[in-house]
Amino acid sequence: MKITILGGGGFLGRKLAQRLAAEGGLDGRPIAELTLFDLAEPAPLEAPFPVRRLAGDVASAADVAKAVPEGTSVVFHLAAVVSAAAEADFDLGMRVNLHGTLAVIEACRKLSTPPRVLFTSSVASFGGGQSALLPDEARQVPGNSYGAQKAAAELLLADASRRGMLDLVSIRLPTVIVRPGRPNKAASSFVSAILREPLLGLETPLPVGEDFRVWVCSPRRAVDWFLHAAVMDTAPLGIDRGVNPPGLAVSVGEMLAALTPAERALVRSEPDAVIAGIVGGWPAEFAATRAKKLGFAPQEGVPAILAAFREDDLAATRADRGM
Amino acid sequence: MKITILGGGGFLGRKLAQRLAAEGGLDGRPIAELTLFDLAEPAPLEAPFPVRRLAGDVASAADVAKAVPEGTSVVFHLAAVVSAAAEADFDLGMRVNLHGTLAVIEACRKLSTPPRVLFTSSVASFGGGQSALLPDEARQVPGNSYGAQKAAAELLLADASRRGMLDLVSIRLPTVIVRPGRPNKAASSFVSAILREPLLGLETPLPVGEDFRVWVCSPRRAVDWFLHAAVMDTAPLGIDRGVNPPGLAVSVGEMLAALTPAERALVRSEPDAVIAGIVGGWPAEFAATRAKKLGFAPQEGVPAILAAFREDDLAATRADRGM
Repeated sequence: MKITILGGGGFLGRKLAQRLAAEGGLDGRPIAELTLFDLAEPAPLEAPFPVRRLAGDVASAADVAKAVPEGTSVVFHLAAVVSAAAEADFDLGMRVNLHGTLAVIEACRKLSTPPRVLFTSSVASFGGGQSALLPDEARQVPGNSYGAQKAAAELLLADASRRGMLDLVSIRLPTVIVRPGRPNKAASSFVSAILREPLLGLETPLPVGEDFRVWVCSPRRAVDWFLHAAVMDTAPLGIDRGVNPPGLAVSVGEMLAALTPAERALVRSEPDAVIAGIVGGWPAEFAATRAKKLGFAPQEGVPAILAAFREDDLAATRADRGM
Repeated sequence: MKITILGGGGFLGRKLAQRLAAEGGLDGRPIAELTLFDLAEPAPLEAPFPVRRLAGDVASAADVAKAVPEGTSVVFHLAAVVSAAAEADFDLGMRVNLHGTLAVIEACRKLSTPPRVLFTSSVASFGGGQSALLPDEARQVPGNSYGAQKAAAELLLADASRRGMLDLVSIRLPTVIVRPGRPNKAASSFVSAILREPLLGLETPLPVGEDFRVWVCSPRRAVDWFLHAAVMDTAPLGIDRGVNPPGLAVSVGEMLAALTPAERALVRSEPDAVIAGIVGGWPAEFAATRAKKLGFAPQEGVPAILAAFREDDLAATRADRGM
């Protein structure tokens, strides 16, 4: 089988590619070819199958068509401009998040067999705030351009799926922690930073209170969900192709309790009304009833998330930051 | 004030233009110029203000920019490819219903003052079926391309509104009856035909049972809603700019009861499983609680709908059909 990862050079795309390389196949079938597509040519990947690495523009139908050749069985569409960037640059977000998705539909409908498409939507497409426990039927009323573009893309992909151009599963990802790298200007940056920075021996600010709750998942669990979505029976979904996966609702205090006292002491309270205002609008928890019935594995607790970061990313993060 | 009607040559666009011409102003302010824009140049309109009539492509940013000049206060965006046509021709529906809306956003954001935009979305963006009484919080899970494109357009317009590019009200129109003209291949054609054809003395088939319920409004009431949306205070809407207006939930039997016995005898039961299957998925009723609080007038009963058709459209329909 041929598989394509759009956004194959990104944080989650790379982890997904590495998992496919380690497993060599999907759903008991060998992988004949993997295409990694991103704005810059993705890094080489050691794998027991051929790997094509393409640089291109996801908003270009011609570029995406090259990345999704005839015979492609699964397309993982992870290419996105994330929340802070889409808010800062409306046109860039529309180009990548909306028109990029339209290019994916165009590429898929040209194939002789409609491919399975895994689309990463986001919890940012919902409102609700700290008191929310959103049911599966919750309406998406996004308060940011990223969420609006993702929700619109879900609708258009679902229609293409209903028409038989592709076979969709959209996963509305929680905040993924622990992200490697450095603190950045994303409002959610602190959710990873309050775990990552102390593990690196560095101080880090906490802009919200310890009772602040957030809906999270680990990169490992996100990849589990992608792979499940790639092989699951989609008939039970009907025309409703959006899934709220079973993440973990956790408070900042619960996250900090997983650190050692010395690590914990590196997290300094620095209330920031602007950040608290933005992240305070995100829903803190989902019921995720449907996803559990559909076989999506629930996110394990904070200790497992921390252990995964130590095993998978801590050494590389140290190296990247010259430590 | 300058006003633009995109889709100004269509059934509802024409009625809206005639109402503006009759009233001469909006919200107590005189109309300085009205632009009617459609694929074909709209027919002349007698009005106490200058009327520009433009032919163009709503998916062309340049064409729409000409239709929305600097100083435009209100844009009525009614231009659409309707349900049956968008289902038959995916590319046409995407072009007009999605890319047309993107062109409207582009035109509005170039103005020095963000204009009020009235967007006509549709009940077709919902599912639910005959047993549904949809609350205002109901999620849009469209089972047709027209509904998917309308729901996606709502999201993108609402985001543009949140960002201050325009000031949006989206109205999810019920099935509009009584439409003039002839029976056509739209699945909902019979909802108008079972009233219109008997008034013309013609037989007409009824593809569903008399207990079939449908959510309707009259063209007059739709225009009332457009005008209210054009002048209302949008602050109470917050970022949620979609309104389910207070239409009328009515059964086919209740509709037929408004006819005389001789007219009633012209409606012949001809069950059609295909049509029943399509229209059976549409929600039969909405709570419309929010819209009533926001001042949208409720739809009156079937006798008022029939009276409006007799007054406004019956003679013209006879003439058009050579009767």
